[in-house]
Amino acid sequence: MQFTLKAQDGKARLGVIETPRGSIRTPAFMPVGTAATVKAMYPDQVRELGADIILGNTYHLMLRPSAERVAALGGLQQFMQWDGPILTDSGGFQVMSLSKLRKITEQGVSFQSHIDGQSYMLTPERSVEIQTLLGANIRMVLDECTPFPATHEEARVSMELSMRWAERSKKAFLQFDAGQGDALFGIVQGSTYPDLREISARRLIDMGFDGYAIGGLAVGEGQKMMCDVLDVTTPFLPNDRPRYLMGVGTPDDLVESVARGVDMFDCVMPTRAGRHGTAYTRYGKVNIRNARHAADPRPLDESVDCPASQNYSRAYFHHLHRCGEYLGAMLLSWHNLAYYQTLMGDMRAAIEKGQFNDFYAQFKEDQARGDIPPLA
Amino acid sequence: MQFTLKAQDGKARLGVIETPRGSIRTPAFMPVGTAATVKAMYPDQVRELGADIILGNTYHLMLRPSAERVAALGGLQQFMQWDGPILTDSGGFQVMSLSKLRKITEQGVSFQSHIDGQSYMLTPERSVEIQTLLGANIRMVLDECTPFPATHEEARVSMELSMRWAERSKKAFLQFDAGQGDALFGIVQGSTYPDLREISARRLIDMGFDGYAIGGLAVGEGQKMMCDVLDVTTPFLPNDRPRYLMGVGTPDDLVESVARGVDMFDCVMPTRAGRHGTAYTRYGKVNIRNARHAADPRPLDESVDCPASQNYSRAYFHHLHRCGEYLGAMLLSWHNLAYYQTLMGDMRAAIEKGQFNDFYAQFKEDQARGDIPPLA
Repeated sequence: MQFTLKAQDGKARLGVIETPRGSIRTPAFMPVGTAATVKAMYPDQVRELGADIILGNTYHLMLRPSAERVAALGGLQQFMQWDGPILTDSGGFQVMSLSKLRKITEQGVSFQSHIDGQSYMLTPERSVEIQTLLGANIRMVLDECTPFPATHEEARVSMELSMRWAERSKKAFLQFDAGQGDALFGIVQGSTYPDLREISARRLIDMGFDGYAIGGLAVGEGQKMMCDVLDVTTPFLPNDRPRYLMGVGTPDDLVESVARGVDMFDCVMPTRAGRHGTAYTRYGKVNIRNARHAADPRPLDESVDCPASQNYSRAYFHHLHRCGEYLGAMLLSWHNLAYYQTLMGDMRAAIEKGQFNDFYAQFKEDQARGDIPPLA
Repeated sequence: MQFTLKAQDGKARLGVIETPRGSIRTPAFMPVGTAATVKAMYPDQVRELGADIILGNTYHLMLRPSAERVAALGGLQQFMQWDGPILTDSGGFQVMSLSKLRKITEQGVSFQSHIDGQSYMLTPERSVEIQTLLGANIRMVLDECTPFPATHEEARVSMELSMRWAERSKKAFLQFDAGQGDALFGIVQGSTYPDLREISARRLIDMGFDGYAIGGLAVGEGQKMMCDVLDVTTPFLPNDRPRYLMGVGTPDDLVESVARGVDMFDCVMPTRAGRHGTAYTRYGKVNIRNARHAADPRPLDESVDCPASQNYSRAYFHHLHRCGEYLGAMLLSWHNLAYYQTLMGDMRAAIEKGQFNDFYAQFKEDQARGDIPPLA
């Protein structure tokens, strides 16, 4: 894996990550393909919207259909017919949020599946092994996502465990990867404490990773605190490695984070919101189930180059979502992912031209304007 | 509307229906777009599979979003972005099967919506008016779908009510259509009684319709009795009008009915089965949720020219359906509709070449063979 920083505008960075499966233009938004599918989307639709990479969830895939099954079927790319690189998380975050009877020890996390109660043990070594079996091109170290809020002492103890796990993850990666050219990212922890974030970043850099994620954010701390943590963390990250803010976020979160030097994002928001009737548009969020759209012949957002955004009326979206039709989730997920990829493309273009400040101002103005007025 | 009979092979007929919105090659299978969407399908996918026409359900659409709303939004084709002709049923069948507190009188059917309990009255005149507002290119007379089983007397009384309603429907159609070139079909009733079927057919022909449907079948009578009714009904139908067997059916039903001179079909089976994990293939039905498919890298049915049929493994279908993923329903509905349209195309080609008997024998042999053997 090779990262090239092509331009910088303020702190905002334009780059490209080369992987054996293809290039990733950064800043990049990675749609989430939880259980080997970006929900309600065909893989070629995701690709055509401009997504260079998607994310798979180790927790979901280790339970169903299992890493060994995916490996026997040729890897995750072949299994789900995704023609590009894939990043997998370590599984740790979802073990903590979804599984039953979970218990963290120095060794790893033991838990029971939320599906059938079967017992599992996820260690740093097993997580990397699973991600290798899945064929992920970018793999993540197992860490503990420190809960928010945490005292300084809790955050320190948790971060230090994550650092020991990062070391074991790297060792396992070197053993499993065997020169395939795939990548392992470290994850900076330390909650909201600048001193802990610095210590965590320095220790990871000492170990040496292909990229650095900023973890433990988007867990309820709010956007301001998230930005504050980014401000005190990114200065300690090397310029020549990609930076990945995990699980983020809203369009505004993405813009604020790119402005602070982040290169990669993933979030279920565009697809989850799409299933529940919320559209992200140039002029802010739209609840398509609202009665004001029931007779509105206008499209969702003409500025987004996607059939879902341009060809169907708001009245049709409203009808489909009121009726609980599959196509409602399909079209709105499609539109939302299109909007997200358009936003990323616009940011990349602005950085390239050295006009990120103008982009930023226009974005804020558009979002503040709010949705188009109702028809009379 | 113009129907041209292009070839006949035994009783099987090859034809084409010309409508102001485009041509319909017959025998034709019409995918069902219940609530202004063929479930889990994009309209352009349906079109690309070879469907020349789809069906909309008057009952669903009159409740949500309402015929007046659809009309104000430019008609059903514009509303759902379907670039072709649409047939609507009269609403009568679904009022009887889905609504609450329904009551049939000479005037029509009064009922309460199954969604919000609101009261409605559906008369022959209102049904045709709704279908006109929806912009349906082929409209159906309101009839009573005689329940099965029925005594001869029950069937006669019910059929005679349907004939009086057919007359009122035609009168309303002439008033509403105003030379738009759209069509109205009559519906033959009479349950399983040949004498009543003959009387019904003759009375409808006296009134004069653009096409003739055979109603009151596929309601539990079984395939043999259905075929018997077709055998005693089609001889009374004019050669120069299309014949439509409503709500049918399995692939085998379609082949048996085409062999008996039927030209048009509609059924929710391919999409409903697709949502529930059942695939229709050249070699019969496949339950993709069965454990035998869990590790099977082979495609569903290579003989069907559709990405869903050829590009994804059975293991992936199995995984998606076990996980309840949208994409499972999307891919399997797509495949099933592709299989159905392939079947119709194969029948049309066989009739054109005068080889329908060979096609019939091969179809029966393939279906009897059963699914490909499991992997060792």
